[in-house]
Amino acid sequence: MSLNPLVFPIDITVAAPSPSDKSADTDRLSDGLKKHGLDNVQIPLHIMRRLSDELRKKDFRVKLAVGLSEEGYRLLDIGRDRICGIALDIGSTNIECSLFDLSSGERVGRGETENPQIRFGNDVLTRVQRSMMGEYSTLKKALVTGVDQVIEDVCKRHGVSCDDVLAVTVAGNTIMSHFFLGLDVNNIPLSPYVPAVNRAVFASAKEAGLPVNENAVVYVFPNSGSYVGGDIISGMLFTGVHRENEPVLFIDVGTNVEITLGCRDWIMVGAGAAGPALEGGVAGIGKKAETGTISEVKIDSLSRKIEMGVIGGTEPRGICGSGLISLVSEMYSAGIIDQAGRFTATGNGIVEKNGVKAYLLHRSGSTELYLTENEIKNFLLSKAAMFSFLYVFVRSVGLTFRDIKKVYVSGALGCGIDPEKAITIGMLPDIPRERFIPVGNSSLGGAEMVLLNRELLGEVRDIASRITYREMNEDAELMNVLQGAMFIPHTEPEILKG
Amino acid sequence: MSLNPLVFPIDITVAAPSPSDKSADTDRLSDGLKKHGLDNVQIPLHIMRRLSDELRKKDFRVKLAVGLSEEGYRLLDIGRDRICGIALDIGSTNIECSLFDLSSGERVGRGETENPQIRFGNDVLTRVQRSMMGEYSTLKKALVTGVDQVIEDVCKRHGVSCDDVLAVTVAGNTIMSHFFLGLDVNNIPLSPYVPAVNRAVFASAKEAGLPVNENAVVYVFPNSGSYVGGDIISGMLFTGVHRENEPVLFIDVGTNVEITLGCRDWIMVGAGAAGPALEGGVAGIGKKAETGTISEVKIDSLSRKIEMGVIGGTEPRGICGSGLISLVSEMYSAGIIDQAGRFTATGNGIVEKNGVKAYLLHRSGSTELYLTENEIKNFLLSKAAMFSFLYVFVRSVGLTFRDIKKVYVSGALGCGIDPEKAITIGMLPDIPRERFIPVGNSSLGGAEMVLLNRELLGEVRDIASRITYREMNEDAELMNVLQGAMFIPHTEPEILKG
Repeated sequence: MSLNPLVFPIDITVAAPSPSDKSADTDRLSDGLKKHGLDNVQIPLHIMRRLSDELRKKDFRVKLAVGLSEEGYRLLDIGRDRICGIALDIGSTNIECSLFDLSSGERVGRGETENPQIRFGNDVLTRVQRSMMGEYSTLKKALVTGVDQVIEDVCKRHGVSCDDVLAVTVAGNTIMSHFFLGLDVNNIPLSPYVPAVNRAVFASAKEAGLPVNENAVVYVFPNSGSYVGGDIISGMLFTGVHRENEPVLFIDVGTNVEITLGCRDWIMVGAGAAGPALEGGVAGIGKKAETGTISEVKIDSLSRKIEMGVIGGTEPRGICGSGLISLVSEMYSAGIIDQAGRFTATGNGIVEKNGVKAYLLHRSGSTELYLTENEIKNFLLSKAAMFSFLYVFVRSVGLTFRDIKKVYVSGALGCGIDPEKAITIGMLPDIPRERFIPVGNSSLGGAEMVLLNRELLGEVRDIASRITYREMNEDAELMNVLQGAMFIPHTEPEILKG
Repeated sequence: MSLNPLVFPIDITVAAPSPSDKSADTDRLSDGLKKHGLDNVQIPLHIMRRLSDELRKKDFRVKLAVGLSEEGYRLLDIGRDRICGIALDIGSTNIECSLFDLSSGERVGRGETENPQIRFGNDVLTRVQRSMMGEYSTLKKALVTGVDQVIEDVCKRHGVSCDDVLAVTVAGNTIMSHFFLGLDVNNIPLSPYVPAVNRAVFASAKEAGLPVNENAVVYVFPNSGSYVGGDIISGMLFTGVHRENEPVLFIDVGTNVEITLGCRDWIMVGAGAAGPALEGGVAGIGKKAETGTISEVKIDSLSRKIEMGVIGGTEPRGICGSGLISLVSEMYSAGIIDQAGRFTATGNGIVEKNGVKAYLLHRSGSTELYLTENEIKNFLLSKAAMFSFLYVFVRSVGLTFRDIKKVYVSGALGCGIDPEKAITIGMLPDIPRERFIPVGNSSLGGAEMVLLNRELLGEVRDIASRITYREMNEDAELMNVLQGAMFIPHTEPEILKG
């Protein structure tokens, strides 16, 4: 990838004034920029104010930072030695960022923090409801705190001054983007579901309220209506769905499941509430992927002995989404649960906890990690929703799973999911395993791409304009498929291939 | 003149959301603007933040304020009932402004105050020198105080909220514009006399630090080098020099004399220090034109009786530039002074004051207004400089005074000068009297024109690009003409026609 960052450094030598060249300092700067092929770079007042002095102090050789914004190129700074940029993914659950040196295009570091809005509700709709009841500014402030923290922290850890950050690209779902920009969220959950903004928003860091250089260019990805957020559009850019010759799937699993099916000719997106199960949230022992989290489970069919993959190799303290898929799949394969997710017998690790039966995964001192039958049911409901969405969605355009040559898997599942296990329980379609391509945090990935290549801005605009949204929760066929999908793998297993 | 203000109100009805129209609020606003022929109006974040609420509160009929800025049209405000604008002339001596209602184009009021920088020196170069020695921010603050005061005062007097002011156009000489914008002035008085900025500057009121709506568009006229300021370019727009078929003169007399000679094919400007005499500043009794100021004098040749025109009809307290011209002309005609400006005899109103001879103009109680021989000499030096500039300037392009069909006279002299008197003393050329056209404060006039007609912005740019500056103080012929011009009317009177 060629390096054309959103904000870029340029060193120029400007003609010194002489009796035969009395042009104003701004004009000589513009002339210098033209010699580098940069016509019409806007020079804002704050730069004009420092310009004459900087030119003479540096003997008419100056370092400039030029940024692309809504109205074209703009001079952002003069005399700055280092120019950095941040790509930001604002998830409902986590806020992640990457810090780049925009001169070299090298990644300097990464940062992550929990979205402090979590304490107002796991579900974003709950947060919007609280906003509607007068808590908007509290929720906005919570998000700002998280964003500020993740940015300040990554800069501090890597010895970068926040003032050196002159570009920030931001991807998030429609509600998160609206909170981030301070936009009204009240109409998003009410029919006809109208957001304040769909277009990409450019602002200065000062306007956006970010703790970086106040003149930094802040770019927020566009969304396409209330249900297709900038995170999905960013993910499409990252996976390249819009460039494929034949239809591919792009599944982003977060609190919601968002499914993109498309190619260079058309892009269709559907979204539905799959419940927080797939992020590990249904189980009492659910935990995000971090040190001490179980990401993988193996149960010997004969001995019922449990082996666990724990992040960081420490004592296990909880289980993440991919760990839970692995666990349920293994419990089913080992005959500990039946097709309906019920325990087949006592013993085999089944204990009684607070009056209900539970599967004991791990005990160490006073710490016990176990899973109840109800938690398994909830998990199966989520996996059923997800599979049913996929099935109905693919069929609705006259395709079958067999026609899909690539399935990009992002979000909670994209980090460490084992497609084999997901297929075993009937969550993902039963197609050749190599067609599944984990892409990690594709929303952050797309934000990084735009940060490093401003020429992609047009591509993002193009993607956004081509999206068709399909409401899935209202689909009649969905209910039929869903009923069977609550079993492992499905009451009609051939559907998994179809 | 058609009304196309820099910032204009527009009332639009926006399509309400429906199940068949789920577009975002910003998009429905953009669509509404398009229906009024306004494509690509930039919608800044602060408007997006209020948009959804405003649309619904007002049932999708909203009042908008749209402004033209450097990058095109921009939405400045929503839901504001009144939209006003201010034209500002920042003179070295006085700051004047006009307040307009931009919906009707009507002038609401005028304001004026002394430029508080005066206390750092009458001459702008003195002020720049003090800036160079570390007093920049003090001088800048002084100017800001004056500008703030004149704006706040005019708004208050006419019951207009400063927040209703969404456009400000500013004309001033290069040094005043630079101080106003907070730009470096250090290089202006040093060869090769390079200003920080020549181009027109657009800024928000917030950036410019003006006490009006923070999103107001502030437009500062371009200058053409250090010696041709935005005030002169604004004056050219006002007088229409650049549209004339044949060369006309435009004389602006302030602390300096600035002469424009041009037509639609070429524009030449020269400037020179004529001394503050012509603004009334040489005399101890000199005073700006306001209530109590003598603007006209008549002396009976026989009785030597003095009649005076006093502004406001009150007791006289001083004399302005045009009054001084009138006075010296009458003293000469009545034989009180000779060709060289010396008193011809004692008596006739000649008294002794502090050991020197003086002409007593007025006495009332303890107040005495008189003029000394030295003050007359200084005045004649200024008038000589002014005439010589004109003479040399017109001749330098191969013309004579007879060829000039119009002479626009602006500044201190433009307010009330009697061409007859100015010709009598040899300050203005001896051509038909009707060719002299007083234009008052042409700098303010041009600023008002742009405020009310944004289509003139291109014309201003065009004028600025066509100006040729001619340094006059270095001219050899000037010295010869100047020698004779220090007499009344000149040692070679035929030169006055030539």
